[in-house]
Amino acid sequence: MVETTRRARGGGGAARRAARSAVSFETARFIERNIPNFEVLTEEALQIIETNAETILEEVGVNFPDNPPALQRWRDAGADVQGDRVRIPRGLARKLCETAPATFTQHARNTARNVEIGGNNLVLAPVYGPPFVRDAAGGRRYATMADFRKFVKLGYMSKWLHHSGGTVCEPTDVAVNKRHLDMLHAHMTLSDKPFMGSVTEPSRAQDSVDMAGILFGKDFVQQNTVMTSLININSPMTFDDVMMGALEVYAQNNQACIVSPFVVGGAMAPVSVAGTLTQVLAEGLAGIAYSQLCKPGAPVILGAFVTSIDMNSGAPTFGTPEASHITYGMGQLARRLKLPYRSAGSFCGSKLPDAQAAYETANSLNMGLLAGVNFMLHACGWLEGGLVSSFEKFVMDADQLGALHHFARGVAVDENAQAMDAIREVGPGGHFLGCAHTQANFKEAFWKSDLLDYKPFETWEDEGARDTQTLAAARIEKMLGDYQQPALDPAIAEALDAFVAERKAAEPDSFM
Amino acid sequence: MVETTRRARGGGGAARRAARSAVSFETARFIERNIPNFEVLTEEALQIIETNAETILEEVGVNFPDNPPALQRWRDAGADVQGDRVRIPRGLARKLCETAPATFTQHARNTARNVEIGGNNLVLAPVYGPPFVRDAAGGRRYATMADFRKFVKLGYMSKWLHHSGGTVCEPTDVAVNKRHLDMLHAHMTLSDKPFMGSVTEPSRAQDSVDMAGILFGKDFVQQNTVMTSLININSPMTFDDVMMGALEVYAQNNQACIVSPFVVGGAMAPVSVAGTLTQVLAEGLAGIAYSQLCKPGAPVILGAFVTSIDMNSGAPTFGTPEASHITYGMGQLARRLKLPYRSAGSFCGSKLPDAQAAYETANSLNMGLLAGVNFMLHACGWLEGGLVSSFEKFVMDADQLGALHHFARGVAVDENAQAMDAIREVGPGGHFLGCAHTQANFKEAFWKSDLLDYKPFETWEDEGARDTQTLAAARIEKMLGDYQQPALDPAIAEALDAFVAERKAAEPDSFM
Repeated sequence: MVETTRRARGGGGAARRAARSAVSFETARFIERNIPNFEVLTEEALQIIETNAETILEEVGVNFPDNPPALQRWRDAGADVQGDRVRIPRGLARKLCETAPATFTQHARNTARNVEIGGNNLVLAPVYGPPFVRDAAGGRRYATMADFRKFVKLGYMSKWLHHSGGTVCEPTDVAVNKRHLDMLHAHMTLSDKPFMGSVTEPSRAQDSVDMAGILFGKDFVQQNTVMTSLININSPMTFDDVMMGALEVYAQNNQACIVSPFVVGGAMAPVSVAGTLTQVLAEGLAGIAYSQLCKPGAPVILGAFVTSIDMNSGAPTFGTPEASHITYGMGQLARRLKLPYRSAGSFCGSKLPDAQAAYETANSLNMGLLAGVNFMLHACGWLEGGLVSSFEKFVMDADQLGALHHFARGVAVDENAQAMDAIREVGPGGHFLGCAHTQANFKEAFWKSDLLDYKPFETWEDEGARDTQTLAAARIEKMLGDYQQPALDPAIAEALDAFVAERKAAEPDSFM
Repeated sequence: MVETTRRARGGGGAARRAARSAVSFETARFIERNIPNFEVLTEEALQIIETNAETILEEVGVNFPDNPPALQRWRDAGADVQGDRVRIPRGLARKLCETAPATFTQHARNTARNVEIGGNNLVLAPVYGPPFVRDAAGGRRYATMADFRKFVKLGYMSKWLHHSGGTVCEPTDVAVNKRHLDMLHAHMTLSDKPFMGSVTEPSRAQDSVDMAGILFGKDFVQQNTVMTSLININSPMTFDDVMMGALEVYAQNNQACIVSPFVVGGAMAPVSVAGTLTQVLAEGLAGIAYSQLCKPGAPVILGAFVTSIDMNSGAPTFGTPEASHITYGMGQLARRLKLPYRSAGSFCGSKLPDAQAAYETANSLNMGLLAGVNFMLHACGWLEGGLVSSFEKFVMDADQLGALHHFARGVAVDENAQAMDAIREVGPGGHFLGCAHTQANFKEAFWKSDLLDYKPFETWEDEGARDTQTLAAARIEKMLGDYQQPALDPAIAEALDAFVAERKAAEPDSFM
């Protein structure tokens, strides 16, 4: 725990109202990679895929159903529009993508927690979307708003998590048309990390922008990006009008979107890696281009959510080598487009936070780091193919994210790191535990898990022979016990409360 | 299960005796990487580390205690020998390493299971050395010869495991001076994959060579490498006379050794990555050079077993980012020496085959593949910092090795892989499950686990809500039930039995 002083931000009336000290908890700065990217595709392969993606856009095209304004935008830009189908001349989508920024800042209300998205950076955000939650004590059950608030608190207390995320679980006890208000309220008041907006209706995107205006000040929001929201593409090559409506709201308000094909390879894309990459690139190009048609220069992230399918059961599979190929390959393609890249996460198919879950998740997290991902949604807490947000897995994965931070630092070779004096001092047959170099450096030398067990067998047995899930359950209790809400100007808090109450009163509950 | 015909090998009387069909089980060919290596060190860093390693060898030197013949070899080669200390002039060790082959073949008695060690290849071998075993049914206990045989059978039945290994667990119910005979006998008769020899005494290395002579034919063994054995260096910079005696036996009989510093960073090496790399390189250079002094051209592998230490408990830690840095860095240094490289494995500190074990193991396995490791000892079954061979984790890890095989294939971009016809056929809004390309390719498209659970939640729950360990226990029973001993010429089997009986009768049991 560290004492920080909350500074007034540059813009916005809200920000100027008060500057007072508050209890905060340490959060690592976003990862700035000092390591190379791993590149699985050759130059020849990249060119083939890029050429084929343009061929798909030109010959097959993409659908923008039920969306006359979008079709008109495409027509005006020079595309061939027939019915819902938009065929994009070779090179046009790529050209339109050029106005998207290569990097942008997403502001947090605690300015120390602003994140830079793009370049060599990696920003880590929690699981998004599951309708169920699971913990060891209560098993698997539908998620509620109380669960949601617990996850936001855990995210706030997680040192290696830079972002509070969005729908960390789907609060099924709140009406579908109102839950976005409670979710945003939780992110804004229980955490001071950056967060995501609602995308389930354009009006909910507008609510998100309005609430951000209360939190940051309206002018500040128009001038700065304070939300990054998830816009999925219905693969293959279909752009849902609701999602596109939300994208439009965000783009026109200078807020960022992740434009992300959602692909289970073999079902929504070809059963081959190169074919899937081609389709995902085509979809990404069309989606990013559309965001720039809505507002040139709007901040945007090229996403790729890709899994393979188990051809026996039809279930999606995670942490697989084919998903890795695609994630590495899309990283290369995104860098050639100079676009921030979203992929990877704590993906797993397992029903429990067990060894299967951890193998699959570690495969994906490691790949995400080395693939040059810039924004990793689902970086902790994902379980059961995304149907479940797991409390224990949330803190287990969040702990592993520390290893990514340390690995990304690369290898120092300054004189202290060379340690020649230590080797000379200790010599053959000695040991380094007490030498001067070790004493001077051991505290910072190695990443240290805050969760995993390294104790001697006998100690571990005396303490109850706890497995990782059991250790995680204890850590959750500790974190929630230590949690303290970050300070917020009471006037802002009241205004947020009032906005939520007013919007809830304006229409009847809907659970559809 | 596949029917294979056992062919007579080129050399050796044993091989010529019979060629008859036998039941065998499918084993994947060793991995031939079609992907780049990940390189964490810059050229400048590599040069600093190489220069410093030579400085260590020249100024500090290495110890060869209690070993006058070794000291004489070094003196004759031009080193400065004072007492046990050998100071090696700059460039001499590197020069001596040049006679070591860049790649070599380790022969198996089933020639289809020969492995090529070096180059772009990766050979996977099981856990080595633990005095304990664990399974869900019996808990943690001292290992016995019965456990050992079970592991050899599981290794034989594991499709993604290329090698039968050596001391898959330490059979503590057999006398220390005799257990190597039973272990070799098990590898030779219960499996037909390549295996390792004994290193605990030079006489036991000679027994290994003699038993290999019975299995392969004496002449064949002199002309071909049939064993790869593990020679640890006592870091820092001490070369044990027993290990060096075993190395000498193997080198002079054309058998391969892995010369491997065994380092817990912070204890046996400096607390920094660059310092540890410097020391490990110096030790490796001295050890490989010594193997070439024993016999120029002897096949050898440069090893690096490196973990970091938990500075609170003093326990070694596994799957950490610093261990990854070192493993990647040593891969680069080994390739610059044109030497085969051994590192990584199913390392973990966990007491149970739980999520901690799987995170740590997956971190290490992924790193091993991308680091360019050529021989991965401990690729499955390691638990509790190497104190325990876990039956369940053996099959869990062995299943994950399949993912390494598929990832290493890289990304095909031939016309079929491009799948343009499929994308054209399906079009926007369709699905690929039934299309011609999917039907033609789905069987080979994706790696499929033989262990992990992808079933719907309800099915999984109806089947008992099994976690990975429980699934693995069931798989062990199945594998051992299906196991059939590979055919062996009865005359060879009798000769091996007789050799073991004779050597056991020749001296009293020792448990020291």
